[in-house]
Amino acid sequence: MKPVNVGICGLGTVGAGTLNVLTRNAGEIARRAGRGINVAQIALRSKHPKCDIEGIATTDDVFVLAHNPQIDIVVELIGGVDTARELVLAAIDQGKHVVTANKALIAVHGNEIFERAREKGVIVAFEAAVAGGIPIIKAIREGLAGNRIHWLAGIINGTGNFILTAMQQQGKSFAEALLEAQQLGYAEADPRFDVEGIDAAHKLTILASIAFGIPLQFDKVYTEGIGQITRADVNYAEALGYRIKHLGIARSGADGIELRVHPTLIPDERLLADVDGVMNAVMVSGDAVGQALFCGAGAGMDATASAVVADLVDVVRALTTDPENRVPHLAFQPEALSDHPVLPIDQCESAYYLRIQAQDHPGVLAEVARILSTHNINIESIMQKEAEEIDGLVPMILLTHRVQEARINQAIGALENLAGVNGKVVRIRLETLD
Amino acid sequence: MKPVNVGICGLGTVGAGTLNVLTRNAGEIARRAGRGINVAQIALRSKHPKCDIEGIATTDDVFVLAHNPQIDIVVELIGGVDTARELVLAAIDQGKHVVTANKALIAVHGNEIFERAREKGVIVAFEAAVAGGIPIIKAIREGLAGNRIHWLAGIINGTGNFILTAMQQQGKSFAEALLEAQQLGYAEADPRFDVEGIDAAHKLTILASIAFGIPLQFDKVYTEGIGQITRADVNYAEALGYRIKHLGIARSGADGIELRVHPTLIPDERLLADVDGVMNAVMVSGDAVGQALFCGAGAGMDATASAVVADLVDVVRALTTDPENRVPHLAFQPEALSDHPVLPIDQCESAYYLRIQAQDHPGVLAEVARILSTHNINIESIMQKEAEEIDGLVPMILLTHRVQEARINQAIGALENLAGVNGKVVRIRLETLD
Repeated sequence: MKPVNVGICGLGTVGAGTLNVLTRNAGEIARRAGRGINVAQIALRSKHPKCDIEGIATTDDVFVLAHNPQIDIVVELIGGVDTARELVLAAIDQGKHVVTANKALIAVHGNEIFERAREKGVIVAFEAAVAGGIPIIKAIREGLAGNRIHWLAGIINGTGNFILTAMQQQGKSFAEALLEAQQLGYAEADPRFDVEGIDAAHKLTILASIAFGIPLQFDKVYTEGIGQITRADVNYAEALGYRIKHLGIARSGADGIELRVHPTLIPDERLLADVDGVMNAVMVSGDAVGQALFCGAGAGMDATASAVVADLVDVVRALTTDPENRVPHLAFQPEALSDHPVLPIDQCESAYYLRIQAQDHPGVLAEVARILSTHNINIESIMQKEAEEIDGLVPMILLTHRVQEARINQAIGALENLAGVNGKVVRIRLETLD
Repeated sequence: MKPVNVGICGLGTVGAGTLNVLTRNAGEIARRAGRGINVAQIALRSKHPKCDIEGIATTDDVFVLAHNPQIDIVVELIGGVDTARELVLAAIDQGKHVVTANKALIAVHGNEIFERAREKGVIVAFEAAVAGGIPIIKAIREGLAGNRIHWLAGIINGTGNFILTAMQQQGKSFAEALLEAQQLGYAEADPRFDVEGIDAAHKLTILASIAFGIPLQFDKVYTEGIGQITRADVNYAEALGYRIKHLGIARSGADGIELRVHPTLIPDERLLADVDGVMNAVMVSGDAVGQALFCGAGAGMDATASAVVADLVDVVRALTTDPENRVPHLAFQPEALSDHPVLPIDQCESAYYLRIQAQDHPGVLAEVARILSTHNINIESIMQKEAEEIDGLVPMILLTHRVQEARINQAIGALENLAGVNGKVVRIRLETLD
């Protein structure tokens, strides 16, 4: 069969990686796909130092590719949301299939894009949007298709994981670890997108949608960053047998679906606790499969390109399929999506790590225990660090059983009003992942 | 669309699990697949205590299903090789698609079966044949389709991993750990299939084929079991920062492909080292993705059923596709399979753990070092356990750099002839997996 013609929009890191992988592995890819994948045109602002575009037609206008009749598949790698949306919709309108690595685009405009794609009978593939080279979209959407998925939890932002790993393993402060991440090129000059959890929330939106068969609802994800995590908390967590990871968690329950991104204590014997540095990992719990873990590089030139090229091969294979019989974009048939509500964070349930600066006399512990008991919150364990007394205050660390967020907040309010408690109570969610 | 009719051959653990998952998750599955999956007939020897077949037609002859004109997909779950082969070929000849969990069948007769399936334009899906519920076939065959895969290494036999975990964590002997595995139902009364590595070799055969695009070559897999592993070696390995795992390893090199199943020391900081008990995990190294790890339950009623049902959904979706454009059975187009040779174990390369019972005087170490140097083998580290002297003999443990198996065997022969060395040298392969 003759090669499929592809247009690559954007020659940044991922665009250059995609071109390189398509060139380097052209033989392997054609042996798999049964036909070659030919890059017919590239839209770029400037050349990339790590790839050779000799002999390939170029343009500086991405919309040229969307209207190029020779191109079968448009690969959107320009990033951002507004132009990317226009580009993808234009390509779809021209009857072209689309491959994108753009998590923000899918999380924010995916419902509209998939509806338009369905009308036109084309595919919009987005494996590269979540967890880089790990084929997690395919795993959940197809590999676990027999399951009722209960929950998933993922380390889906490499920058944040790099920072927390450096704090835990090298004893760095958040600021020191962030600086190192910036120096190594893992974090942007403006790191908020990563460390505040917005990037992870985009990815969680997508994962939850394909796991539970709900529309994309980025605006309903509760998002909390890692900027408030201190070395002290990392150390106390470790002493109690936990690590702090920045997780995206989606859980389906009787009352609704929890969608939340926040720092989380997890038991140190979980494999997820050992996923260090810029690595990504997603744990999925299904009624049939039990627990499965998918781990790999969450970003980077070649790893993300690996997912883009896998999508290209998938689309090439699907060119001759009946559109009605393809894997649905969001795993479930569009007319079978569920309206199970997303719960506000107040109604989410978690265990908690609480750190209290308490006056060093026995009566305080009794008062703390009384307040938690009044709010019907069970204590899993207590650790008091007498040796760390400063100005008559000692840190008291409590781990609670699972309780609704609203109730722990009420209890924290009461704790902060105690005479023997100083300042704010530090509160970090804890998940046992069992 | 009207439901697809499926026939289940065999109502053992996996058959019962498959029926249960199809029943329990019928709604979720239909929401994904766009149509229902109806079990039209079951071939069974006896009822299964954990599933209800009320209202489903049954037979005691599996070949009835292969010839039942109402059945679109035959699910082969009878196990064994000979009848299973006949059944699958009969179903294919009747134009039916096949889903199987039978690793031995695919490893031994897969080339013939896939050729016949291709002639008839039907699919033979086998996700459940490797690593239970982990969608590893799909991940390698589709999710990593853009990669040149360098190597993969997997814990792909849960029984063996349970035994090694019990030896390492609870200090049990091999015999004690095996007995516990049998009492818990993880190991058969005749455990050879698992502990001698034959089951793992079946799975490795399949993984290597889809990773490298080579025909299935079960007879060329080097297979070594875990029966010779002692608590002492587990402990010495641990002291040196390693764990012993029973791995299936496939590696593609310039001279050929290594296919080997054997006990292996791996660094304890690798995630794979923490995959304990009956869990399975496969690590894949590709030129684009880097390293990816896939982990989950490798066996069990529901986990294996998860893979069978995922295959069913895949086949249902592919019913309307052009057979020429489907994912090839062995990931690569049949006419594009490679004849890259499988290397005999003598030509494979590995690092090694050697344990020598040596006389307790300094001259022995010098002699040992001289012999290794003569054979051009570099020593990574040496540990001598003076405190464990018995009858003037102390264990001397050496870790070597990578070297061809033939050369280490020559060196071991020379070491065993040394006057200061007693008995056989214990030799376990070591892989750093980096």
